[in-house]
Amino acid sequence: MMRVLGIDPGSIVTGFAILEKGNNGLIHVHSGAIRPSARESFAVRLKGIYRSLQTVINDFEPDDVAIEGVFLAKNPQSAIKLSHVRGVTMLASAEAGLEIYEYSPRAVKLAVVGYGQASKQQVQKMVQALVRLKEMPSPDTADALAVAICHIHTTISG
Amino acid sequence: MMRVLGIDPGSIVTGFAILEKGNNGLIHVHSGAIRPSARESFAVRLKGIYRSLQTVINDFEPDDVAIEGVFLAKNPQSAIKLSHVRGVTMLASAEAGLEIYEYSPRAVKLAVVGYGQASKQQVQKMVQALVRLKEMPSPDTADALAVAICHIHTTISG
Repeated sequence: MMRVLGIDPGSIVTGFAILEKGNNGLIHVHSGAIRPSARESFAVRLKGIYRSLQTVINDFEPDDVAIEGVFLAKNPQSAIKLSHVRGVTMLASAEAGLEIYEYSPRAVKLAVVGYGQASKQQVQKMVQALVRLKEMPSPDTADALAVAICHIHTTISG
Repeated sequence: MMRVLGIDPGSIVTGFAILEKGNNGLIHVHSGAIRPSARESFAVRLKGIYRSLQTVINDFEPDDVAIEGVFLAKNPQSAIKLSHVRGVTMLASAEAGLEIYEYSPRAVKLAVVGYGQASKQQVQKMVQALVRLKEMPSPDTADALAVAICHIHTTISG
């Protein structure tokens, strides 16, 4: 059995998901989104994201961490902000001694939807079906679930 | 009396400097450079930088932190790597409850050399003179000293 923490870092919302690969497929253990207060300084928001992830890691003890690689968005300033957040999510993982696996957005969409250019909505719907959630996850939570699914598929079939 | 931690984050070398403003000018308390092993994963290097800065903050108890803002370098991939490191340096500061002040590279050079387009060497020489170091500091340590000097000048004269 393998337990994976998927992370979708973002300066406004950071999605996270704990998934297991059991004998009968994927098991959704826990997922959610960290939304630091916009009234706090960026550094204090980084601290909030870091501590929330530390709590998730301590509570659910994943074996591996899966995270999307940074791609250069249309707006490079967004990629820079995102990379600060990504840095503290990697730190929280490294502090817990976890291996971090990076997947490109295209690889994640291919693994989950079977199509590298899939829309956010397609990812949300497919993720909901694959892990049998009653409600459709938010885009950020869905992306965290998706990268965790991608890692499980890659590792099990590899 | 004000004690400032200046940081020059980098994925290969992170410079840091502890400076004080006393009655007779600037006092160099401590400075150095963190060089994580290139053989380690990026996440483990982030952890090394984070812990080294935690130690500096615990040992020298600065009042403020000064750091250069990110500018979009010619190579955006460098800016992205740098931003991961910058994220963990901001986290170490926020975890210690310190205020973080950001200055543009131009503002730092103006404050230290009096010329916004100053070369790295000019910054090294001027910093060495201003804080009365026997030897010329390395470029990364000099940049950390420079941003600390910039913060002290800005705050005292402000």
